[in-house]
Amino acid sequence: MINRSKILASHKKTRGKIAIKSKMPLRNRQDLSIAYTPGVAEVAKEIAKYPAKAYSYTNKGNLVAIVSDGTAVLGLGDVGPEAALPVMEGKALLFKELADVDAVPICINTKDVNEIVKLVKQIEPNFGGINLEDISAPRCFAIEARLKKELKIPVFHDDQHGTAIVVLAGLINAAKVVKKNLKKLKVVVCGAGASGTATTKMLYSYGIKNIVVTDSKGIIYLGRKGLNKYKKELAKITNKKRIKGKLAKALKDADVFIGLSNPKLVTKAMVKSMAKDPIIFALANPVPEIMPQDAKQAGAKVIATGRSDFPNQINNVWGYPGVFKGVFTVGAKQITDKMKIAAAEAVAAYVKKPTNKCFVPDSLDKKIVNVVAQAIIKTYKKK
Amino acid sequence: MINRSKILASHKKTRGKIAIKSKMPLRNRQDLSIAYTPGVAEVAKEIAKYPAKAYSYTNKGNLVAIVSDGTAVLGLGDVGPEAALPVMEGKALLFKELADVDAVPICINTKDVNEIVKLVKQIEPNFGGINLEDISAPRCFAIEARLKKELKIPVFHDDQHGTAIVVLAGLINAAKVVKKNLKKLKVVVCGAGASGTATTKMLYSYGIKNIVVTDSKGIIYLGRKGLNKYKKELAKITNKKRIKGKLAKALKDADVFIGLSNPKLVTKAMVKSMAKDPIIFALANPVPEIMPQDAKQAGAKVIATGRSDFPNQINNVWGYPGVFKGVFTVGAKQITDKMKIAAAEAVAAYVKKPTNKCFVPDSLDKKIVNVVAQAIIKTYKKK
Repeated sequence: MINRSKILASHKKTRGKIAIKSKMPLRNRQDLSIAYTPGVAEVAKEIAKYPAKAYSYTNKGNLVAIVSDGTAVLGLGDVGPEAALPVMEGKALLFKELADVDAVPICINTKDVNEIVKLVKQIEPNFGGINLEDISAPRCFAIEARLKKELKIPVFHDDQHGTAIVVLAGLINAAKVVKKNLKKLKVVVCGAGASGTATTKMLYSYGIKNIVVTDSKGIIYLGRKGLNKYKKELAKITNKKRIKGKLAKALKDADVFIGLSNPKLVTKAMVKSMAKDPIIFALANPVPEIMPQDAKQAGAKVIATGRSDFPNQINNVWGYPGVFKGVFTVGAKQITDKMKIAAAEAVAAYVKKPTNKCFVPDSLDKKIVNVVAQAIIKTYKKK
Repeated sequence: MINRSKILASHKKTRGKIAIKSKMPLRNRQDLSIAYTPGVAEVAKEIAKYPAKAYSYTNKGNLVAIVSDGTAVLGLGDVGPEAALPVMEGKALLFKELADVDAVPICINTKDVNEIVKLVKQIEPNFGGINLEDISAPRCFAIEARLKKELKIPVFHDDQHGTAIVVLAGLINAAKVVKKNLKKLKVVVCGAGASGTATTKMLYSYGIKNIVVTDSKGIIYLGRKGLNKYKKELAKITNKKRIKGKLAKALKDADVFIGLSNPKLVTKAMVKSMAKDPIIFALANPVPEIMPQDAKQAGAKVIATGRSDFPNQINNVWGYPGVFKGVFTVGAKQITDKMKIAAAEAVAAYVKKPTNKCFVPDSLDKKIVNVVAQAIIKTYKKK
């Protein structure tokens, strides 16, 4: 773990992580009359006539709003919009450094679904795409669904779909490492929030049908009391045998643990109870469900976390920069399921010979962005 | 006038005028674990505990939202939020280049006062200040008043107060050029929108009591039918003799014409009817109320426009960058009338020997920003 005071000092030194950069010179009056008055009136008139030209004459077509209400920030929970700011700035930094996509945090102080949808619609003119971030479930599902329907620009909830893409990519390669048939794996997804729900759905639609999902109350099964409509949907496609009980019961004989929940939920004993050569993705941030050394001691064959300071980081950073780069390149108005699966397969295929020491790309490998962008572009052109 | 196709081509070449810039390095996993997970969790926790620390650990304290609904863009009127984008990007470019203040356009597609106020409150956490821009009167007055009261960060409607600052600065020096007593000038303000209203109020509070304001219906006087509450307020402090009629009548024997209205409203004959050595500020953009050569031929002694491609440009660019720089430097939560007057006096005093050829600063003189910022800072410290 990096030193806390060093982290704070780094942020204080630069007062955050992103700033504005000029793209047009401003050396003299002529420059000023082009960039601002009177010249800019010509640009305004042109866009008033043809609104789509905002994509040519302004930064709209390369600009993402990272929208969060601060209710589910990392593993910290509801810390509020101000505390979400450094996280969203970090995301914007990664968008810029990895994909040359511009992004600005829009951290908002309302948690009301209707208000959030209305606000994003009201600010839509500025942006080429919306990246929803760290909004707690189940509100995030309703917000995303409505925005996808009501906006003219692509909407992507990274906690859901970004996570689903990179987990599927990681699992494709982990199955190769342990030489098991991917589609026959018995998978336990721990966490039925944004990322757990979307990951489960993506694995299922990819052909992995033997999945059990757990939440804070234990195993989800059809008929369990108090399931909201999103968990009911999960119950319909998972846990066919309707087993009941806690996480420990779900893990018995499972091939894969995918943790998208809370720190320290998994014990060595649970790992030992799994099938041969267990695959452990302990992705809770910043503290994983089980520490890698403990998982290893308990016999895990392939281990990943969500942390930059451990090996085999499964990181959304492979996903969203390339997704938006691809989408912006072709001007796609939706990010489809086919695009997401194509992105996952492309990330997996990028690691030529996956081993348990290294089965996923390095988080800062800048080539991944283009790998994903190309997958998105190809899928878009095929439609 | 600059060539239209050159203006459009310049904007297309760079796809707009601003982008995002990184302030923190991202060279390796250690950098990533500081800027993003897991390290950033420490910053989020710190701000969750002490929200004011967002000013130290994020870009909030240097970031302005340029909020517009696109209803009064330049002199073009209600062109909508997309068409407002290139103008707001231009403004952001100037903020950056002149004051190193970061600003992002927030062009919104609602014109409802309550909705706009609510939206700005909802996005407040991201920003250190709000610059309202190109929102039509009289809605802009209500929006600004409510935001000043309801937000914890400074709010500045540049069309109002930025214009008032630079017009007062220009007029202080123009009076010196024609050797007339500033406070005894007979002033006609043409236009009772955002800028005309605020300018009139500022001139009045500065001691210039002989002012007549005109709008599209002619001279404003107490008792004129159909005046809204803002124009009624103007009527109370102007036109003591309650003269009635059109602009031409108001201009007879006037010392100063301040045009903040529409193109081509003023004829040579009107200028000829003014008092000796008329001062003409024809500030409509992009086309002034009277072209400078016509005003000169008709005998105007001091002439200014709002355009970068004519001499003596009276430009808001002297105002807002330094105002926000000053306010951000000291962490002021309000931009007060005293600060605005101090800014105007500082800009005027910066031109050591005003002449009719040059009585205002060059728009791109980067020293003006600090002159204004220092005036703001001094005034803040005096309080």
